[in-house]
Amino acid sequence: MKAIYLAAIAALALPLPAYASGVVDNVNGIALDPSGKVVRFGALLIDDDGKVEKLLPGRYQEPEYKPKKPKKGQPWPERPKAPSFKLDGGGKTLIPGLIDAHGHVMGYGLSLITLDLSDTRSLAEAQAKIRAYAQANVGRKWIIGTGWNQEQWGLGRFPTAAELDAAVGDIPVWLERIDGHAGWANSAAIRAAGITPATKAPMGGRIEMAGGKPAGVFVDKAMDLIQKITPPPAPKDRDIALEKAQRALLAVGITGIADMGTSIDDWQAFRRSADRGALRVRIMSYAYGIDNMVLIAGPEPTPWLYDDHLRMGGVKLLLDGALGSRGAWLRADYADAPGQRGLPMIPDTQLRNFMSRAAMDNFQVAVHAIGDAANHEVLNAIEELNDTYKGDRRWRVEHAQIVTPSDLPRFGQLGAIASMQPVHEASDWRMATARLGEARLNGAYAWKAMLDNKVPLAFGSDVPVESPNPFAGIAVAMSREDGKSEPAGGWIPDQRIGFDAALDGFTRQAAYAGFADKKFGSLVPGQRADFLLIDRDISAARPADIRQTQVLETWIGGKRVYVKGQ
Amino acid sequence: MKAIYLAAIAALALPLPAYASGVVDNVNGIALDPSGKVVRFGALLIDDDGKVEKLLPGRYQEPEYKPKKPKKGQPWPERPKAPSFKLDGGGKTLIPGLIDAHGHVMGYGLSLITLDLSDTRSLAEAQAKIRAYAQANVGRKWIIGTGWNQEQWGLGRFPTAAELDAAVGDIPVWLERIDGHAGWANSAAIRAAGITPATKAPMGGRIEMAGGKPAGVFVDKAMDLIQKITPPPAPKDRDIALEKAQRALLAVGITGIADMGTSIDDWQAFRRSADRGALRVRIMSYAYGIDNMVLIAGPEPTPWLYDDHLRMGGVKLLLDGALGSRGAWLRADYADAPGQRGLPMIPDTQLRNFMSRAAMDNFQVAVHAIGDAANHEVLNAIEELNDTYKGDRRWRVEHAQIVTPSDLPRFGQLGAIASMQPVHEASDWRMATARLGEARLNGAYAWKAMLDNKVPLAFGSDVPVESPNPFAGIAVAMSREDGKSEPAGGWIPDQRIGFDAALDGFTRQAAYAGFADKKFGSLVPGQRADFLLIDRDISAARPADIRQTQVLETWIGGKRVYVKGQ
Repeated sequence: MKAIYLAAIAALALPLPAYASGVVDNVNGIALDPSGKVVRFGALLIDDDGKVEKLLPGRYQEPEYKPKKPKKGQPWPERPKAPSFKLDGGGKTLIPGLIDAHGHVMGYGLSLITLDLSDTRSLAEAQAKIRAYAQANVGRKWIIGTGWNQEQWGLGRFPTAAELDAAVGDIPVWLERIDGHAGWANSAAIRAAGITPATKAPMGGRIEMAGGKPAGVFVDKAMDLIQKITPPPAPKDRDIALEKAQRALLAVGITGIADMGTSIDDWQAFRRSADRGALRVRIMSYAYGIDNMVLIAGPEPTPWLYDDHLRMGGVKLLLDGALGSRGAWLRADYADAPGQRGLPMIPDTQLRNFMSRAAMDNFQVAVHAIGDAANHEVLNAIEELNDTYKGDRRWRVEHAQIVTPSDLPRFGQLGAIASMQPVHEASDWRMATARLGEARLNGAYAWKAMLDNKVPLAFGSDVPVESPNPFAGIAVAMSREDGKSEPAGGWIPDQRIGFDAALDGFTRQAAYAGFADKKFGSLVPGQRADFLLIDRDISAARPADIRQTQVLETWIGGKRVYVKGQ
Repeated sequence: MKAIYLAAIAALALPLPAYASGVVDNVNGIALDPSGKVVRFGALLIDDDGKVEKLLPGRYQEPEYKPKKPKKGQPWPERPKAPSFKLDGGGKTLIPGLIDAHGHVMGYGLSLITLDLSDTRSLAEAQAKIRAYAQANVGRKWIIGTGWNQEQWGLGRFPTAAELDAAVGDIPVWLERIDGHAGWANSAAIRAAGITPATKAPMGGRIEMAGGKPAGVFVDKAMDLIQKITPPPAPKDRDIALEKAQRALLAVGITGIADMGTSIDDWQAFRRSADRGALRVRIMSYAYGIDNMVLIAGPEPTPWLYDDHLRMGGVKLLLDGALGSRGAWLRADYADAPGQRGLPMIPDTQLRNFMSRAAMDNFQVAVHAIGDAANHEVLNAIEELNDTYKGDRRWRVEHAQIVTPSDLPRFGQLGAIASMQPVHEASDWRMATARLGEARLNGAYAWKAMLDNKVPLAFGSDVPVESPNPFAGIAVAMSREDGKSEPAGGWIPDQRIGFDAALDGFTRQAAYAGFADKKFGSLVPGQRADFLLIDRDISAARPADIRQTQVLETWIGGKRVYVKGQ
């Protein structure tokens, strides 16, 4: 008897788990195996650290405890520990947590607490909404907003300062275009910024003019002329914004996101949230330029912080603008604006210097390149830098929207990742056709060609430029149809991809693109147990149905962080 | 048998300690009780979280395990857990870890990797050291240094640019005075900064002139003219500097420090260190100005981070300069410079605005005030703000060196903390006498008067302005003699204080001043087990002996972080 007691005491000295372990049972489990093929399972076991312990093919069976009687003086074998929680999935579909490879977390959060014009269908409707917002926010020194899109309004031109004055004239108003590449100011804002007819646009920017005066819209770098005097959000606003962004992301099944352009203010908000245990969404942070990179991370990428919830691993560089505002840098003139080709925002030598500066300290480099000239230039730079910076660099090209066909294979050859946003295609297809003309669309939003060229293809949303809903992204990737199922059969349909590859883009490839593939992104034993319960089997659904998917529960690190309707 | 087995299994489910617990036995323990009186003990028990469990009056006794036989079916009572480590202190003296209530952690670290002139005894010696440093650091674009003191050189005047040119003329040289309130530039640095005879000193600063040209020394705010173009230390330099600072602080027994003026770059280095588990010294951080406060901490003080190793709880504001450079703001002219009274660096309304801005978000306010006019002004501001900002505010006055006697009681009445540095008195007494004249020394470095007026008196070193060695600080507090035992019997000896109060200033009061008194600062059960083993019983030693104290071991949070000679 004493011997048994002592054995039990000895057992007490064993390290015991700090977390509870659990079982999610009775699910229609869908995951991707190491080759990227769909595999199915019936239950998920979660270990004490909130990591995947095992996928079971069928239902979970409580292990039996029927030990043989031990020899005299020996203790009975230890009873298998029962899981501390067991969830009956009721046959619902379980998929890995989805990862957005390109978003703007703080920008999204601020957009959720800011005047948002993205649902306005006409200039008049926008004016009414701006006026109502001003009346509901009396006392503000500025009105700041976002989301307008003159294409959506069917305006065929940019709006003017006078049209904004008609909505709000007494205080400065500054409204960013939906793509963040242009801003619309009223006359009070233009005056407050000290902008006159003589003001020159900085390099990489353009001031729209009318009758020899600034017309009201400022493109790309010219936005700085106004933005330098707009009041920045207070830290408290940022904290509210981050919390709102997290809730919204969790509600659509986003468990991880690459934050593409983290400022020091953004980073401090991330840390404040994590320091009080409120950071649930995993953030792979890319600094907004070299200065932020050095200030935030210092001499090298940060370690993974807060149980793999936050890391600054690289820098985001902006090489060109967007197609909508004709800021994308093209190799030939815009089809709908002869004489214009867009502009590089970073001169060629400086691009290489910035990329070197980051790579020499082992930071990852993510370069925004939309136009074919920009993509060509980034690939050239990577080709040159590959001689110096060996090893696993995972150069990222963000957007890679318009690529010269002969450049497509170079991504794979140079080890570059294509970080693309399927929903952009759905939003852009008409506009892109107008900007480029039918003859230059061969390498446009060319997902299938990327896969055929063995290019790692990571998917994201560019939230808040688009909705962060990844099911819309999967649907578009498979169909190349927009939310109204247009154009029927898809735009350039040979670039559609299959379900497995679409899911891969929003899971394993997005994690790989963020150097997180050893941490999360697939339900492989040892990875963080980030997963969703959803309301349909998306592996068997048509794209239009996938788009309607509702997330029922979101789990991160083995903990439930979102339940629909709660 | 089965019943016992099951009981043991049930025991397995109890939460087990994550840390080891321990005993430091056989020590001459000295601590302060809640009234600030010395108490003695023989052993220290540390709990599983690295906190003080108990002080034992004598030696530690292993608890016996002689349980009565339990009733049938009941388990034997649990055997008391043996401590996982036991250190025999060999009768050595154990005291609480010492806390520096006012230092500059990064400044100290950078000084340890920077040209240091504080040991030079003449201008010629300094010139030789500067020349040698330049030769040992070929390729540097600037030579940056610190520590010079024309008083120590017996120069009787500031050094000149020409004298610095004679040491190094080909590259810019910028050397801060030991008190950080003046800088010495060579001609190359003055040229590089674009400073001409016509350059005006900014408010709160002074350009020393000779023959109508800048003479080489720039006082207080005029230092910015050069400093704005000196290259900042790289993050890697900061990491090295922080590690060096920590090692040096631990070696003299500093386990906690108030960092008085944390920049965002400093803060990021603190976090990098903590993120990799290398932050041992506890840092109570005060932001360098409001902008850093908002950027670093955001809408409110940070929580205690990393197991009570780091917190930003307040802001440091600089109201005046230092006595040495005649930047301290006096109510009457300097005795040795008629017509000069120093200057406030912050106008009166702005001071109140800054203090309000911090207090409204519950940040603590620490105002640097050296001259009697500055101290008077801070007390006036506190008096006004006390009407609005109720509750436990712990307004801090940093240095409080020269105080009008009628202002001394106001500290206590207004709830202000005097954060003072005994070693300054030892360094300054001759100079202070010259600057003020004998008749105005009544409230100078008036520690005893502060205690008599029930003012919380926190002690620090102002490292790197002075050595951080707190034993020198205790010795000076008790003797008012410098390291050469001058003046014999002490300068203004009625302001000497006793050992208990001196130790209190470097432990409990320093913690109280940093809102850390519930966390560390005294060896009370439940507080972090931060303590030292030292080579003598300082409670029974003369000040000159206390000054020689050697730290044998430094422990923080129940872990040994420094051993002499290792």
